This record gives sequence, C-alpha cells and structure tokens, in this order.
Amino acid sequence: MPAFEIDFGNPSSTHGHGSAAMDMMDAARAQVASCIGCRARDVVFTSGATEANNMAVSGLDTGGRGILVGATEHSSVLEPARSVKEKSVGYVPVGPDGVTDLDGLERMLDDDVGLVSIMAANSETGVIQPVAEIARIVHECGALFHCDAVQAIGKIPFGMDGLCVDMVTLSSHKIYGPKGCGAIAATREARGMLRPIIHGGGQEEGMRSGTPNVPAIVGFGIACDIAAAEGLADMPKQAALRDMFEEGMERKAGDVIVNGGGAKRLPNTSNIRIRGALADAVMVGARGVEVSTGSACSSSAIEPSHVLTAMGLDRDAAGESIRVSLGRPTKERDIDAAVSGLASASRFVRGKMAGGVAL
Amino acid sequence: MPAFEIDFGNPSSTHGHGSAAMDMMDAARAQVASCIGCRARDVVFTSGATEANNMAVSGLDTGGRGILVGATEHSSVLEPARSVKEKSVGYVPVGPDGVTDLDGLERMLDDDVGLVSIMAANSETGVIQPVAEIARIVHECGALFHCDAVQAIGKIPFGMDGLCVDMVTLSSHKIYGPKGCGAIAATREARGMLRPIIHGGGQEEGMRSGTPNVPAIVGFGIACDIAAAEGLADMPKQAALRDMFEEGMERKAGDVIVNGGGAKRLPNTSNIRIRGALADAVMVGARGVEVSTGSACSSSAIEPSHVLTAMGLDRDAAGESIRVSLGRPTKERDIDAAVSGLASASRFVRGKMAGGVAL
Repeated sequence: MPAFEIDFGNPSSTHGHGSAAMDMMDAARAQVASCIGCRARDVVFTSGATEANNMAVSGLDTGGRGILVGATEHSSVLEPARSVKEKSVGYVPVGPDGVTDLDGLERMLDDDVGLVSIMAANSETGVIQPVAEIARIVHECGALFHCDAVQAIGKIPFGMDGLCVDMVTLSSHKIYGPKGCGAIAATREARGMLRPIIHGGGQEEGMRSGTPNVPAIVGFGIACDIAAAEGLADMPKQAALRDMFEEGMERKAGDVIVNGGGAKRLPNTSNIRIRGALADAVMVGARGVEVSTGSACSSSAIEPSHVLTAMGLDRDAAGESIRVSLGRPTKERDIDAAVSGLASASRFVRGKMAGGVAL
Repeated sequence: MPAFEIDFGNPSSTHGHGSAAMDMMDAARAQVASCIGCRARDVVFTSGATEANNMAVSGLDTGGRGILVGATEHSSVLEPARSVKEKSVGYVPVGPDGVTDLDGLERMLDDDVGLVSIMAANSETGVIQPVAEIARIVHECGALFHCDAVQAIGKIPFGMDGLCVDMVTLSSHKIYGPKGCGAIAATREARGMLRPIIHGGGQEEGMRSGTPNVPAIVGFGIACDIAAAEGLADMPKQAALRDMFEEGMERKAGDVIVNGGGAKRLPNTSNIRIRGALADAVMVGARGVEVSTGSACSSSAIEPSHVLTAMGLDRDAAGESIRVSLGRPTKERDIDAAVSGLASASRFVRGKMAGGVAL
C-alpha cells in the first residue's frame, strides 16, 4: 500500500519520489533472490510468469540450436515454443506417473540442442520433476536448462544455485502476492544469451522495458519472504489434508485413481479420476466446490488436458479427472465439504451415465 | 481494493471467484472503451503502454509492407521498430515546432507502407499532433494508423472513432490509475492483422496470454471514467498554471525559449530551454523541484533527447532544456516555488558557466 499511495514515483525518474520507488524495488529484488538462491542482479521483473516463460523460450539466443520442452509444460512454455520459427522444437515425454522420462531426454539431447525447458512441478497434477538430475543431463550436453518453478516455490525447497538451473520462472500471485508480476532469474551465462521481447526505455538493465509495476513488485518480494518461511512450514498440514481428501473420495465415491499418484507430488494438489463420472457433470453437480478439470490457462476448454494425455490417459479417462487445489487457508471442514459434495455428485452422475441418460 | 481482497479469483476459472473477477474486467473494458470511443470488444488489456506499443509496431502482420514511425515517438515505439527485422522502417520528420511534417509524411507514403505510428501528444514537450489529418493521409494510401495516445487521454478530447484511428495505445498510470496495466484498442480490421507477442493460455481472446492483472484493470477502468469526466474539466486550470510557469521563468530567469511553444500543446507539459544554463546543473541546484531533462523511459541519460534533436535543437540547446509536468494536484504555490527554485538555480549556473568554472 505505501507503494500505491505514498511512494508512487517512477523508479526511473531521478527525483525524490523516483528514488524511493527504486529503493523499494531493490529490496524486493533481494527478497526474490533470497527465496530461490540466486543473486539479486540475476532477477528480471516481468508482468508475470507467462511473459517470463516466453522470454526464456523464445528470447534465448541459442545460436540457431533447437529447444526441448517437457510434454506436460504449461501453455506459456508450449505456445511460445510452437511460435518459434527459427529453431527446431522437441517434446520430452513423461511416464504414466507424469515424471520426465530421463532416458528419453538423454536420447533427444545432442549438440544441436541449446535449451531445455522442464518445469519443477506440474500445475494440474502436482507431480514433481527430478530437477537436479535433469540439470545434470542437460549440462552434460552443453545446453542451458530453464525451469518453470511457478508451482514449486513456497511448496517445496527450490534453490536455483544448488539445483544448477540456468533460468527460473516465478509468479507472484501463485504465492499469494499481487497479480501482474513475475520474474525470470538467469545466471550470468544465461543472461548473456537472453534477448528482451519487449523493447523501449531499457528498464531492468535493458531486459524488460516499461515502467515497473512497483506496488506489485514490492508485494511479490514480501510474498517470497513469507513463502520461504511460513509457506514451506505449512506444507505438512496441506499434505495431510490432501491425503484426507483422496482417501475420503476413495471411501465415499469409490473407484478413484490419483493421477500421478505414483510420483512425488506437491502437497497442495490433487488430480483424481473418478471412473465412470464425467468431470464436467460432477462439477455442475457439486456447485459449491470450486474445482476445475484442467488449467485455467487453457486456450480451449473442449480439448482434454494435454498433461493427462501425455501421461497416457485417453480422452475418456482425462474427461473423468478433476483437479483440486488446497491453499494455506484450507481447513479440515473444507475437505469434508469437498469430499461430500464431489462424492455425492459423482454417485449421481454415475447413476445417470449407467442409465444411458444423455448429459 | 475489492479486486485485491475479496474477488481475487482468476477470471479464466469457471468457478465463483473467477466469474466475479471476469465481471469486474468486463466493466473495466466498457469504461476504457467509453473513454476513447471504441467498442468494448476492441480493447485488449496489456501490462502497460510499452507492451501495447510493441504489439502495434512489431505484432501487426502487414504482409511484408513497411512501417513509418514519427521521429519524436516514445522509445517503446522506436525500439520495437528498430528491432523488427522483416519490415522496412522509416521515420516521419517533425518541424521545428515538433508537429509532424504532413507533406513529408505524404511523400514517404506509398503502397509498400502497411502501418504508420504517430503519437497523439508528445510526453516531453506536450506538442499535439494533427491526428485526424494524419489518419486521412495514411488511409488514402491504404495503410493502418496506430496512435500512442498515452499522454493525450484525460487531457484533450480523443475519440478513436471520430479520429479514424485503427489502433490506440493507452496507459493506466498516466491517468492516475495503477501501474502494471495498459491497453491496445484495435478496430476489427486492425485486430484481424494483429498477432500476439506473448503466447500461452490464450487470454484476451488469444491476443494476450497470462493471468489478467484484475485489480490494476479495475483501477484502470475507473481512472478512465474519472479522466473523461474530471480530468478534461481540470485542464483549463492546468493550462493557466503552465502559462504562469512559463511567464514566471521568462520574467525571473530571462532568455527562456519554450520548446514546441509555437504548436498546440497539452495543458500539463512545459519544456523550456534556459539559454546558457546546463539543465542537469539547474536540476541539482533546485533540488526540491522535481523536474527532468527528458523521458524517464530513456535507455541512456547521456544522449540528448531525441525529441528535441528531431525538432532541430543541437546537443547544447537540448542540454539546456528541462521538462516540467503539472498534475491535477498542482497549485499556484507549487508554480511559484518551481519558478523561484529553477530561476535562482539558473542564474547561479549561468554565473558559473560565464565564469568558465567547470561544472
């Protein structure tokens, strides 16, 4: 709020209000850096994670070498990869548990690959990728490794330095910070190859032009501090609630499969297939429960989730899957209500579908 | 604040919090559209004016035809124009008063030009461009006309429809809205040729991916309402204060030239050359007065303002020029203080410079 109401200056201005805003930005940059274990100067603020992923995928000058992206990446990695014209693009497969196929990755890597982009944890299933192993394999072949860590920050420990990641994407609003802000953190080497995708006044040392969104950046910095401290500490509770949700669904609805259940997962995400119950119908039947079938950031709601199909689910199985996200405010009674609403809706939908009634 | 604290949902989500956020965005879109006289569906929200200008200049598919940009455009138009590889770029000159040379524009236009980008009013001098005439000339040759109206909105009447502009760039924080938000408004024809520069979840009907910055968008909409109503009504007062400033400087410092003084100007902007007084030194001497030498959005503070050099000022003349912006809170006593501080500093600097003392 002080950045909105009092120190509302343009940090690029030389006068008083401007330098107060710049000081606040510097503090936020240090907070973000500390949260992910990089240097403050490695952090470039962007309008959000989508822009940061676009920068990493289409803004990196690979010298003509191709890029590999995970098959279950977020659309903000997949779509810029698709739009890149001058580089070849390959898709790294995942196993049925959603974990990157490391042998597959190794086979796809050669001297013609300049960049590999694989996320830290999946937004739809919570499946955690073996980031350190991926970094080692990618670096052995001389490519750079970009990791979209939007879902991981504040939920699992993530150290850019320790994991040997060259570029990391962050989002403010995914860790309870304000919308409209994110960052790409890049090591010195990666930064030397990174080209801006938005041109103008040369802010962020030329990497991202435009008046910085100071209030959001300040909030993002504080959110990083809180995520590193309280966020991680809250996760055992969320994991217990998540397990309670999945056990409750198995008990009350039955015939439930946890997508990615065989893998390490984020404590806050559950993606379950309720066999024989169309997920869209279940959601309609359980109106008070705010769940979704896939990503909110999906250009087409009609297509099945690309994350689930990459894990080998067919269209029908993906269509029976719902994604449930827990948060820091989630309580046991919320889990009870969600299980009760979703299980009852599932039974109703299964009855209709078994009776051959068109939904 | 409600968009921060209560309806914090993702507008792309299908559930309750999400649709409340989407309703607020729709209302803001209508407010922005009403402010500039276009249809709500023509408005694409962006992270700010820099991104919007980048979209217009480098995102428009001109079918290989070239682009013309004004010589005094903002860096967020000039730099993307410079970075475009597949199109030819020309620079439309201005006269010594900063107004676009319409004959020059006409001579530069031919069938090979697909887009002309000229601003409504200049950020450094306040000089207003003849937008309707430019639109007529540009359309006669079959090109599209993009107008960066960031400085004009809320200060002079600006109707996209009446002026026949194909694309308009807007900024929230330039009209007292929150930072981190802007828009590109595009007619149906222009929109059909516009390509996104940030790819992902397909938000904004595919034109701008990324979770929308809902609180900033809501604030932007309200700022547009206020700009259209109170902002314009406040301008005669600001024009009178601006004139008082310029007369005061002539009286108390003397030998002052108003850059762009011969042109129609925004009521809130004054750019004066104080002959014989280095502007950077004057600013140091008048510390309490928050003025600047050029644009805050300038990648190099060492170079003279490209706006002033395009008007024919040499490096020395540009170096003696300061830019003063008035705002809605500006009062007569602020003008008195600014004149007093700047005139006194100017006399001091002139004395030093006349004495041959190195600054």
